[in-house]
Amino acid sequence: MFSLTIDQLKFDEKGLITAVVQDHLTREVLMVAWMNAESLRLTQQVGETIFWSRSRQELWHKGATSGNTQKVVQILVDCDADTLVLLVEAAGPACHTGERSCFYRQVE
Amino acid sequence: MFSLTIDQLKFDEKGLITAVVQDHLTREVLMVAWMNAESLRLTQQVGETIFWSRSRQELWHKGATSGNTQKVVQILVDCDADTLVLLVEAAGPACHTGERSCFYRQVE
Repeated sequence: MFSLTIDQLKFDEKGLITAVVQDHLTREVLMVAWMNAESLRLTQQVGETIFWSRSRQELWHKGATSGNTQKVVQILVDCDADTLVLLVEAAGPACHTGERSCFYRQVE
Repeated sequence: MFSLTIDQLKFDEKGLITAVVQDHLTREVLMVAWMNAESLRLTQQVGETIFWSRSRQELWHKGATSGNTQKVVQILVDCDADTLVLLVEAAGPACHTGERSCFYRQVE
């Protein structure tokens, strides 16, 4: 599979890129968050998802306090190079509500 | 499954919401695009994905010219109500490159 480097990604005007997190086996979408270049580099170094929290304006190592970390298996990027899909092995629920996925409701 | 109405969704300051499009059978993430309230209402009415093109600043009925429409099976929403996952049955490739999914490359 063709590979891009972080420098080839298109971060938005705030320096962020959308990160879709998907279970690597079930392919269930677990959550969608944001990364900046630093959080993506740290994700690659640590091997677990580290996002940029827009509300708290700080790095957010998913599961650092809850234990519900996400081990990164593969990072995919789209044709525009402005969105990521992270295939992960989740140690626990992705959602703060305790649901396995944040997408536990539907639009009627 | 608990349902939300469009009025309960949180659109951003530009009136947009992130829309992750996933194959309803393989669960492959096909593309990520944007919707506003109007495009979401039209998506529900027509039963096919209709996005808001940020580059062209207009409604974008996916596949209207190429034939590669996406029939909507279910629309999920996350805990924050600010991101959608659309489970679809795709008539053809999602990507303008001809790839089935826009996520055909990885980050090294």
